[in-house]
Amino acid sequence: MAKTLKVPEATIKRLSIYMRVLKDLEKNGIEVISSAELAEICGVNAAQIRKDLTYFGEFGIRGVGYYVKELHFDIRKVLGLNQKRNLGLIGVGNLGKALASYRNFSDHGYNFVAAFDADKAKVGTTLPCGIDIYHIDKLKQLVPELNIEIAIITTPASAAQDAADAAIKAGIKGILNFAPVQISVPDGIRVKKVDLTTEFDNLAYHLFTS
Amino acid sequence: MAKTLKVPEATIKRLSIYMRVLKDLEKNGIEVISSAELAEICGVNAAQIRKDLTYFGEFGIRGVGYYVKELHFDIRKVLGLNQKRNLGLIGVGNLGKALASYRNFSDHGYNFVAAFDADKAKVGTTLPCGIDIYHIDKLKQLVPELNIEIAIITTPASAAQDAADAAIKAGIKGILNFAPVQISVPDGIRVKKVDLTTEFDNLAYHLFTS
Repeated sequence: MAKTLKVPEATIKRLSIYMRVLKDLEKNGIEVISSAELAEICGVNAAQIRKDLTYFGEFGIRGVGYYVKELHFDIRKVLGLNQKRNLGLIGVGNLGKALASYRNFSDHGYNFVAAFDADKAKVGTTLPCGIDIYHIDKLKQLVPELNIEIAIITTPASAAQDAADAAIKAGIKGILNFAPVQISVPDGIRVKKVDLTTEFDNLAYHLFTS
Repeated sequence: MAKTLKVPEATIKRLSIYMRVLKDLEKNGIEVISSAELAEICGVNAAQIRKDLTYFGEFGIRGVGYYVKELHFDIRKVLGLNQKRNLGLIGVGNLGKALASYRNFSDHGYNFVAAFDADKAKVGTTLPCGIDIYHIDKLKQLVPELNIEIAIITTPASAAQDAADAAIKAGIKGILNFAPVQISVPDGIRVKKVDLTTEFDNLAYHLFTS
């Protein structure tokens, strides 16, 4: 279906929210939830949830709502997160260390398996969360060996492009770039830039203009 | 106008993107941009930009496009960012240190003015970015004194609620919570939880399901 290729980014973002809420509900032993209740917890309206889910198939039972465990499973599958995904961290500074030890990642199926840095003083040491730090030259060997699928770039801006190039040469297809700079990648590689300041703008809007 | 009270969150998020793009264009000396070009750089369509801007007034000149500097200024004002905003950091761990030194904040009008922690070994020291670390008991004195408007909580999950309570007692009206836990706040206080893993879901969707 061509339709599945045109899922709006906003829908994917909301699916990610639904998945988190459903995960919590499941953990709390809740088996069924009405679409109105689910909508309220997720901060959207019920029609929006229904619309978002129609991109992927039939979900929910009229008059009952959604089976929490099933919908959680299905959304996870839709997002490609029905299996653990291995992450490699490139750049072991404060942000890198913070991300590697952020417990939400493993909760959501992401698994940091190795960290890389150019600083020889860091290479050979282990992060408090148990991840070993390798020299960035080891990417080529370890990306296939450890089945690393996504590179998380947390280098300074000046080192981000080199880090991306090395990761791509090693076989990485997806990059999440936290460095405050644009990086260029060849066709077929997906890169997403994360700007930690955008959340602030939303808060500022609500605080200072309402 | 009641209309300004119902601006969709997605619009605010896009305004934040437009603002960043316009800032870069302005820095590069570009004076005028067509709505099609602006749309392409922002990754949305031109109709979306026009629609987003109509919530706030009349922008752009038919057949010409937008004046970069003016639109940048106007969006900044719409978002409440036409003046510097002072931030206080609570919780000086890896993530806190990373945020405080993330140069994008000052680029976008945010200004970390003080950091707070409960750990007496950290209190009295200064972060590499030049921000002093105070005991969390000092919030009550320093929030008004330094005109801190937003508290950034980067404590461990177990300390986040206490940190929020102390910040609110000190007069803070807006909180950005990076701790992986929900915090409760009284009416009139705005809290936004930031989950660093949501960006990963979007990348995973595009990498693993297309």
